[in-house]
Amino acid sequence: MRRSIGLSKIFNGKKVLITGGLGMIGSSIAIKLAKLGAEVTIVDSFISPYGANYFNIRDVKNKIKINISDIRDRESIKCLIKDKEIIFNLAGQVSHNDSLENPFLDADINYIGHLTVLDAVMHYSPHARIIFSGSRLQFGRIKKIPVSEDHPLQPLTPYALNKLAAENLYLFYHRVYNIATVVFRIANPFGPRAQMRHSKYAIVNWFIRLAMEDKIIKIFGDGNQVRDYIYIDDLVNAFLLASFKQEAIGQVFNVGSGVGNKFRDMAHLVITAVRKGKIEFVPWPTNYVNVETGDYVTDITKIRRELGWTPKISLKKGIEMTYQFYKEYKRFYWD
Amino acid sequence: MRRSIGLSKIFNGKKVLITGGLGMIGSSIAIKLAKLGAEVTIVDSFISPYGANYFNIRDVKNKIKINISDIRDRESIKCLIKDKEIIFNLAGQVSHNDSLENPFLDADINYIGHLTVLDAVMHYSPHARIIFSGSRLQFGRIKKIPVSEDHPLQPLTPYALNKLAAENLYLFYHRVYNIATVVFRIANPFGPRAQMRHSKYAIVNWFIRLAMEDKIIKIFGDGNQVRDYIYIDDLVNAFLLASFKQEAIGQVFNVGSGVGNKFRDMAHLVITAVRKGKIEFVPWPTNYVNVETGDYVTDITKIRRELGWTPKISLKKGIEMTYQFYKEYKRFYWD
Repeated sequence: MRRSIGLSKIFNGKKVLITGGLGMIGSSIAIKLAKLGAEVTIVDSFISPYGANYFNIRDVKNKIKINISDIRDRESIKCLIKDKEIIFNLAGQVSHNDSLENPFLDADINYIGHLTVLDAVMHYSPHARIIFSGSRLQFGRIKKIPVSEDHPLQPLTPYALNKLAAENLYLFYHRVYNIATVVFRIANPFGPRAQMRHSKYAIVNWFIRLAMEDKIIKIFGDGNQVRDYIYIDDLVNAFLLASFKQEAIGQVFNVGSGVGNKFRDMAHLVITAVRKGKIEFVPWPTNYVNVETGDYVTDITKIRRELGWTPKISLKKGIEMTYQFYKEYKRFYWD
Repeated sequence: MRRSIGLSKIFNGKKVLITGGLGMIGSSIAIKLAKLGAEVTIVDSFISPYGANYFNIRDVKNKIKINISDIRDRESIKCLIKDKEIIFNLAGQVSHNDSLENPFLDADINYIGHLTVLDAVMHYSPHARIIFSGSRLQFGRIKKIPVSEDHPLQPLTPYALNKLAAENLYLFYHRVYNIATVVFRIANPFGPRAQMRHSKYAIVNWFIRLAMEDKIIKIFGDGNQVRDYIYIDDLVNAFLLASFKQEAIGQVFNVGSGVGNKFRDMAHLVITAVRKGKIEFVPWPTNYVNVETGDYVTDITKIRRELGWTPKISLKKGIEMTYQFYKEYKRFYWD
């Protein structure tokens, strides 16, 4: 990442739209861009139980616009897309377990919603850059780690399936209409500003809450399953690079720390940082076994090479910073 | 294809649902299966300007049930799916040019509609076999002919994109829920019972109408673009095999004649058969250039090997039979 003086030059005065902008990733991007002088508009639908939280953007609330609407609302999106130069399209149904219960809602938000935004971009802001946050879950059962972009895509949940369908939309709008789309497939993000009310996603955050409440952290199986946890600040830097680098256009990037950590080790780091909580090993629930992907580690060769991006925050350091954040602002995230 | 005595044993008394069953492919399957003793129910939404036509099933109308509804109608589909053993899911928005104008309608029918049917199958008829009619257009620009199943999939229209997304749905329901899904990617079908009111699809049929009216058949460019035209009877046989062969389950098959014909040669065959009409060469319209795939010939190695299927009707013979059909029944298809 080049120094901030360079980034100010790039983003100062830029008209930016961030959908899902009150969630963890969106708000973190909004804060950074607002401080760099960008004209940031946030769209958020505030659908419960997703992560929208006004507190997330408290520090910059006078510098940005907030528009409550839904990416499935064609007229609203049409108005908001006009004149924008960069769009971070982060809105979404975010629980892969919920998608098993309601595949229609998932398809509606995570596929038709993206079609709505892309169609509006093509008609009303065809020169905008638009970045899509896909998921490592699009790969399904992992056949080989580390996972590069050309690993087979065989989703195990409607969530992952719709993310894949949406990814194909982004590639299509680039291929046929020359829209400057960029696709990310993100590993497990964590950090400040994630919702902390339930365990449906952002598992590191959820464990931090359990530890802070001195509760039992349940680990499925032996806890040896490997995950790639990416800290929010590193992820934000990747999004920023993708929003202006020429090399990003029309490309798919796997985004993660590039480091694998066992689930049990992650839990131990949480307990060590918080100095409370304890671990209990329990059998895998059936509905989790069916959608378990196996060990996951991101191959970050491509994004490193093409965008010059390098993640900098270790899991240990990231957990400590996340804990400090919620220790201070706990009341804004649960109770 | 084994002899019909064998097929009677297989299909006699079988409960079959055919969505889009009043169109060319659906009605042709319905006629064949009704004659083999199957209990056939047709679903059709009669959306204009697609191919639904009561005349198509005239010969078997007392042997089958017809239910007017839409694959997006969850309650109706739920009722109709229950107790069915084989489902030919052929309903769809069928014009790739129209999909450029209205990608939302296309996504709604060609993606959410298929989700509706698959979700109903999983809940109410999990042991049913279900066959999906995808399109050769899913491949987009052709890089290598003949085209095998592993050719890259880079759609050029929302129609093709949604067919690809739907294909992934079928593979997903097989992978995760063990539903017996089969995917076809079909080349250019033609033959009796296709709609003849407009040129949006089934181009061979349209040319036959133009010739029968002694009109000018316009060919874009030099007419050397190669296509794979598959006659309806051969296609019906492929669908029947896919509906009972074990080897078909969870598989994707490219379906075509395996033979490439130049566009101009196809037009000449039409004129020769009809003994009227004439050809005029015109420049490519811009909106066609952008979605032109290049030459297409199906590699039918896989379906031949796995299902023992072989196409038998040449383009010449097929055009002659199609012409004979419309010569006799013209009044039911246009005017």
